[in-house]
Amino acid sequence: MNNKFSDDSLALHTDLYQINMAETYWRNGFYHRKAVFELYFRKLPFGNGYAVFAGLEKVIEFLKNFKFSESDINYLREEGYQEDYLNYLKDIRFTGSLRSMKEGELVFANEPILRIEAPIMEAQLIETPILNIVNYQTLIATKASRIKHVIAGGVAMEFGTRRAQEMDAAVWGARAAYIAGFDATSNVRAGKLFGIPISGTHAHSLVQAYRDEYTAFKAYAKTHKDCVFLVDTYDTLKSGVPNAIKVAKEEGDNIDFKGIRLDSGDLAYLSKEARRMLDEAGFNHTKIIASNDLDEKTIINLKSQGAKIDSWGIGTQLITAYDQPALGAVYKLVSIEDETGSMVDTIKISANPEKVSTPGLKRVYRIINKTNHKAEGDYIALEEEDPKSEKRLKMFHPVYTFISKFVTNFEARELHYTIFDSGKLVYQTPSIQAIRRFTKENLAVFWDEYKRTTMPEEYPVDLSQACWDNKMKKIAEVKENVAEMIAGENRDN
Amino acid sequence: MNNKFSDDSLALHTDLYQINMAETYWRNGFYHRKAVFELYFRKLPFGNGYAVFAGLEKVIEFLKNFKFSESDINYLREEGYQEDYLNYLKDIRFTGSLRSMKEGELVFANEPILRIEAPIMEAQLIETPILNIVNYQTLIATKASRIKHVIAGGVAMEFGTRRAQEMDAAVWGARAAYIAGFDATSNVRAGKLFGIPISGTHAHSLVQAYRDEYTAFKAYAKTHKDCVFLVDTYDTLKSGVPNAIKVAKEEGDNIDFKGIRLDSGDLAYLSKEARRMLDEAGFNHTKIIASNDLDEKTIINLKSQGAKIDSWGIGTQLITAYDQPALGAVYKLVSIEDETGSMVDTIKISANPEKVSTPGLKRVYRIINKTNHKAEGDYIALEEEDPKSEKRLKMFHPVYTFISKFVTNFEARELHYTIFDSGKLVYQTPSIQAIRRFTKENLAVFWDEYKRTTMPEEYPVDLSQACWDNKMKKIAEVKENVAEMIAGENRDN
Repeated sequence: MNNKFSDDSLALHTDLYQINMAETYWRNGFYHRKAVFELYFRKLPFGNGYAVFAGLEKVIEFLKNFKFSESDINYLREEGYQEDYLNYLKDIRFTGSLRSMKEGELVFANEPILRIEAPIMEAQLIETPILNIVNYQTLIATKASRIKHVIAGGVAMEFGTRRAQEMDAAVWGARAAYIAGFDATSNVRAGKLFGIPISGTHAHSLVQAYRDEYTAFKAYAKTHKDCVFLVDTYDTLKSGVPNAIKVAKEEGDNIDFKGIRLDSGDLAYLSKEARRMLDEAGFNHTKIIASNDLDEKTIINLKSQGAKIDSWGIGTQLITAYDQPALGAVYKLVSIEDETGSMVDTIKISANPEKVSTPGLKRVYRIINKTNHKAEGDYIALEEEDPKSEKRLKMFHPVYTFISKFVTNFEARELHYTIFDSGKLVYQTPSIQAIRRFTKENLAVFWDEYKRTTMPEEYPVDLSQACWDNKMKKIAEVKENVAEMIAGENRDN
Repeated sequence: MNNKFSDDSLALHTDLYQINMAETYWRNGFYHRKAVFELYFRKLPFGNGYAVFAGLEKVIEFLKNFKFSESDINYLREEGYQEDYLNYLKDIRFTGSLRSMKEGELVFANEPILRIEAPIMEAQLIETPILNIVNYQTLIATKASRIKHVIAGGVAMEFGTRRAQEMDAAVWGARAAYIAGFDATSNVRAGKLFGIPISGTHAHSLVQAYRDEYTAFKAYAKTHKDCVFLVDTYDTLKSGVPNAIKVAKEEGDNIDFKGIRLDSGDLAYLSKEARRMLDEAGFNHTKIIASNDLDEKTIINLKSQGAKIDSWGIGTQLITAYDQPALGAVYKLVSIEDETGSMVDTIKISANPEKVSTPGLKRVYRIINKTNHKAEGDYIALEEEDPKSEKRLKMFHPVYTFISKFVTNFEARELHYTIFDSGKLVYQTPSIQAIRRFTKENLAVFWDEYKRTTMPEEYPVDLSQACWDNKMKKIAEVKENVAEMIAGENRDN
């Protein structure tokens, strides 16, 4: 397939209905109308207390390069689209604005992560790929953060490529994991593309190829300074660990005997026994690395049993977010330009109350207590409000509105940054190291109760009074319009 | 990232340990030794009775283009690899042979899907990307086959891009679904790249943008001949369906009113009511399309409640294989050239009996009953055996060996084809339409009891007597060697 379309672009990496809706807007002279869409998810994944936003770097690349290629246009022509519309598509670029949280930001349900302001056609065409990118990368960064949280001071390594959902997931998942606090990946390409430390020594097949452990470890030691021996091919404690120790003793200073890896069996028992054997042989500084379908639950359990594991290799459970393999972020229209050129807020009503969207252009503030420097809650206000200048802020639950508190002596830190301004990229992407540090600093702003991996406290995400009032007003308006529409229908039929 | 490395290749899309093991082989003069690896999974996913193999086309592309690029080599140099080894890597290509099942073949646990014969270095370097490709594509083809099975005569559409695990998963997942019997995808790029029919009309945002359904449907109808109206933005039965009917009546022959789409609410009730309303309005030929987090279990339930749904849009549950997001295929060394140039079979022993590999070069035959043309079971024989010439075949369970049967009047259809022969591609990839037909024909060879989506019968996958004897012999040999090694260790320490 690669040969067939050397100019394969990502402009067609979208749902067909976007192309069809865009055609309607275009033919109706509606296409220049400015629309504002917000991207958010409605429920935190894994029952976690927060999510870690990732995906912005790829979204930026996508928007920067957004352009239909010649083969894209030819394909659409074959599918029956007309020349006038194709001519328009040929020249389309992203001319809108993007405001977004930074990668590594902690984010919660129902708060806008990204906000797109663009001619409605552009805003629709880019919806699907942006969701595709942000949903996966944020999901994996969040899962990685959970796992790293329980690994705590230990080393966390991403080993999942062979089980990843195709190739992009492997490398972008490795990146998301690193942002969220992982220390290395086994995927060499991810290391090269993103500057992530890479990790890996040898597999069972080396032992099988040399047919016994001693010969295999010896061969490896003769060809590599840093040695971590995989000890579970035949019998971990009777053969693997003794052979590793034997080779390490024989090789002495020729090698740097870093440790051993366990990949099967009872990791608690085996690690404790292996630790004892290594210590008795004088290799107190060696590390024990464990892998084998690990996730945060197993790691907590192993640790509670006193497992002597220093480094953790995490594969399938992380790279596929096994226990919840999709984040349900959505992309909703919150405001649109009307025929007179004014912006009109829009709402999506649903019988399901948590699916009702919040209309209007909004900003998200993290309210930080200036005394203890911890986050009190997030505060979603309308564009024109300025909570930074307030002395005393009323925060109330957006569903159970009687739950409220007043905050004073706070800093209102705005979470959105301007990334694109009228089509121009105005944001300097930070280095991956800086993003990773940023995540770590963000985590420090939150109380521990929000960071438990099971049954965390719910962090407050509140609407300002003006934002809430605007939502109620819109709900009333829509109800009235729908009632009218339905009444109209009944008369007509 | 794309700008940084315009020569990004997939040769580094592998685990670091492969590069390190390859270095050991190379420096030890071991690298020319021929190795045979087999790829198989140990357990069928989703509790299904079979899997549908997909991924070969991309594996072929990968092997054809396997080559370290300049930036790959530069990166490895930065990581500390020596010039002599880098020089060797620079020139490496895939020079081995690949035998594989065809895409769309039905495959079962513990039978080799692919068999790679190559110098051990090459065979190791390609392990991770091949598993990455085959694990995902086979997983999705299998999930799609389950879903299509319950949809039966209805139309199945893949709608998952926004929830897919990054971009490759979206397009290759769409392809896998199509191979397995899906009828269309919403992903336009997948349509272009692979020649899959594409499907989609409009979303809720069109209705929001025009602010009422009548205006939105009218605008769509003025700009598209084929119309499917999404009717659940405000109130499906009171507003959506009546507005769709109204616009369809007004537009008459100007449009082809194909049907309506339901995306929320009780799909059984709403589809029955909508059907009645459409029929009463004279639109008996319109179709009802449903979407909203559907999977095979929900579809069975909706059908059992008499839902009037003609077409099914399947998103998250399919594209992520939500209930089991990873297939655990492995890649195991089954034979290796020794220092004298002879091939020696190898085995991987495990305390876990189902993890013990089956040594030796093998072929897989599907035993077809010549009377009813149904599959009796799969038969794994050693390379040199010829079950085609047998009159009467003994088939026995590879674990419960006392469960056995004799088969006569059969055709032994070999499932592997030669794809690469000593580095040369000798296989002509079939068209995607041909692959899809092939899947359908394969399904017809199996009794219904293997195709139930819950609690299917276990299809027999048996070893030949010679294959089984070889495995037992190898187990005994390894046990003896390990005992010797351990005894040796005990003396040494």
